[in-house]
Amino acid sequence: MSNISRLKARTRPDYRYILEYRTRWSDNDMYDHMNNSIYNFLYDSVINTYLMERCGLHPPSSPQYGMVVHSHNDYFASIAFPACAELALRVNRIGNSSVTYEIALFEKGHESVRSVGEFVQVFVDRETGRPSPKGMNPELRRGLEYLLVDSSVSKL
Amino acid sequence: MSNISRLKARTRPDYRYILEYRTRWSDNDMYDHMNNSIYNFLYDSVINTYLMERCGLHPPSSPQYGMVVHSHNDYFASIAFPACAELALRVNRIGNSSVTYEIALFEKGHESVRSVGEFVQVFVDRETGRPSPKGMNPELRRGLEYLLVDSSVSKL
Amino acid sequence: MSNISRLKARTRPDYRYILEYRTRWSDNDMYDHMNNSIYNFLYDSVINTYLMERCGLHPPSSPQYGMVVHSHNDYFASIAFPACAELALRVNRIGNSSVTYEIALFEKGHESVRSVGEFVQVFVDRETGRPSPKGMNPELRRGLEYLLVDSSVSKL
Amino acid sequence: MSNISRLKARTRPDYRYILEYRTRWSDNDMYDHMNNSIYNFLYDSVINTYLMERCGLHPPSSPQYGMVVHSHNDYFASIAFPACAELALRVNRIGNSSVTYEIALFEKGHESVRSVGEFVQVFVDRETGRPSPKGMNPELRRGLEYLLVDSSVSKL
Repeated sequence: MSNISRLKARTRPDYRYILEYRTRWSDNDMYDHMNNSIYNFLYDSVINTYLMERCGLHPPSSPQYGMVVHSHNDYFASIAFPACAELALRVNRIGNSSVTYEIALFEKGHESVRSVGEFVQVFVDRETGRPSPKGMNPELRRGLEYLLVDSSVSKL
Repeated sequence: MSNISRLKARTRPDYRYILEYRTRWSDNDMYDHMNNSIYNFLYDSVINTYLMERCGLHPPSSPQYGMVVHSHNDYFASIAFPACAELALRVNRIGNSSVTYEIALFEKGHESVRSVGEFVQVFVDRETGRPSPKGMNPELRRGLEYLLVDSSVSKL
Repeated sequence: MSNISRLKARTRPDYRYILEYRTRWSDNDMYDHMNNSIYNFLYDSVINTYLMERCGLHPPSSPQYGMVVHSHNDYFASIAFPACAELALRVNRIGNSSVTYEIALFEKGHESVRSVGEFVQVFVDRETGRPSPKGMNPELRRGLEYLLVDSSVSKL
Repeated sequence: MSNISRLKARTRPDYRYILEYRTRWSDNDMYDHMNNSIYNFLYDSVINTYLMERCGLHPPSSPQYGMVVHSHNDYFASIAFPACAELALRVNRIGNSSVTYEIALFEKGHESVRSVGEFVQVFVDRETGRPSPKGMNPELRRGLEYLLVDSSVSKL
């Protein structure tokens, strides 16, 4: 099974954290479906909600924060306003200072996945804007490990 | 009671249609609260959802559509990502081709209203971009009348 | 001349600071014109650019920042992607801690104004979130006074 | 030279179409730099402006339109409001119905590139939502070929 076929076959149980986002009027573009750029807004939102609610991140003051250095996304089917999107999150890799999230977008009431993408974030110190030699802080790491999919079982 | 005091005292039962919208990471500005411009996005979303689900509006093809000609908003308290906003809708006035919506933003789990605003929309014919001499179509009018607050009882 | 007629007659020389913003694909909604919510984004952008470039505001660290407490807007004609919008700014009133901006949107290459609105901002202390008893700081006040239109000459 | 090193070395002359976009207040996130999702908005804007101004695309009525099926982006350095972004566009591949755009973001007044990404679009018939057996129409193809970089010289 090719990589793209594998992603197209993703279902909700492949993910460990799911939030529902109602789409907005302005999400639609002139072709009557959600604009491709909006997917990244939603990916970013589910990631940051997880970081704030489960990993102790407090954006205005935390000594470390995540910078996105890479993103990619495959779009399999569209979604349109008004609808409810379900954003599903897992972690595919954790390094010393970096994390690779996989995010999928489902539509409420529909089985098949609409899009799957990855974001790579590097945690940097607020003061220097550079990764710490000690890597990400332990509370972050613990929170992210909870979402980590065993790569020996389910390889992306 | 001044007009502003009256608006600050609004509660959910003053409205007839409420939808919940999860806030997005990008909604926050640098001061760690939802940017004022986002309120209009959400107001627009609850209005258009109502028009599509209850008034027969189909944006890509309906012979009439609504153009916003005026908007105003009073901000009483802030809301910040991550949170769930509840958008509450009513209609304060219906004219021949125009409608005045009142929209309020509440935060889930909190009693007091965060903001109250009005949008004035004029329904125009798609072909001419001008209001029809006959005014808005009957299905639209019926849907909007359902949200109309009796102005002899509850004056804005 | 009614208030609305006066606003519709606004021209670029009525304003003291103008910036050009290219519209974005996502600004258009399904009716092929810029969504009404985007106007507020652009109003906010020209105001904050002025505050940062001419009034010494530094959002991540300044001891005072502006909170929008009221906004209203009248839409006279539409603009659509792709186009260049010209955002024109003046100040109509300055209080102890508050300022009332007037912002107009023009389209490059076209004479008549597309929309005119006002934003009311209150400057609050970052630590308390409340206005200072001394009001806005002197550098802010000086910068805003430069944009203040003599109300004995040009009444809104 | 690795692929990433090659992308980091991109300069404006590597592209054939450049538009300037002023950043907006709302583009910044809480870390005082432009949110990663905004890059896609700008990429989309320069692509669609080119399609409309040079390839005869008219979104409300053209018989074919482009659907994004894949996007990826590498972020090398940040940009913050207020600033002017320069969006630079080229085409890396043209298929029967698909096109691969490469887009780079520069900051006005600065030499080094901030980000480089690719969008893959498939042109579909408006009526069916599927690619035409004849592929994209000739006017589109001619317009896109003008941006095509000779891949024997400059391989991505």
